[in-house]
Amino acid sequence: MDNSIFVGTKPFMNYVTAVVMQFTTKNADEVIVKARGKFISRAVDIAEVATKRFLEGQVGVKGIAINSEEFQNNEGRVVRVSTIEITLGRL
Amino acid sequence: MDNSIFVGTKPFMNYVTAVVMQFTTKNADEVIVKARGKFISRAVDIAEVATKRFLEGQVGVKGIAINSEEFQNNEGRVVRVSTIEITLGRL
Repeated sequence: MDNSIFVGTKPFMNYVTAVVMQFTTKNADEVIVKARGKFISRAVDIAEVATKRFLEGQVGVKGIAINSEEFQNNEGRVVRVSTIEITLGRL
Repeated sequence: MDNSIFVGTKPFMNYVTAVVMQFTTKNADEVIVKARGKFISRAVDIAEVATKRFLEGQVGVKGIAINSEEFQNNEGRVVRVSTIEITLGRL
């Protein structure tokens, strides 16, 4: 099972709650917080708040990967966007 | 010697050039791209463009660390801000 949370424009605490719930009520061993472009900063905030304010001593950052994706925009130009995947796991 | 580049509001390519120059003209083995808050997304973009467009096959991401810093704002309230450190090194 892939416990991925994709960060976008929803309210900040929605994502934090989603992460915390995966570990608490759904008993997940690992949750991956994913984001692209300008949402990358938000993904880091979510990982930090979830692990340090809500799951301190229980869950931590297990790994972080960054990458690039390319796609064609509406004008047919190839655009590059950065991505991040932050893997959180039980300590 | 600590080859850190702190990402802020300067033009994007200034930072990319600074990273590339550290490896090419200054012969650094490692460069750390650092950012706080909303500049984290930018730091990831800089690391991706420097390693994939300019230093492909020569330099890659060696490690990524995220953390939180707390400080008092002007009204005396404690504010949390996320940080990132992306370590780039020769392949």
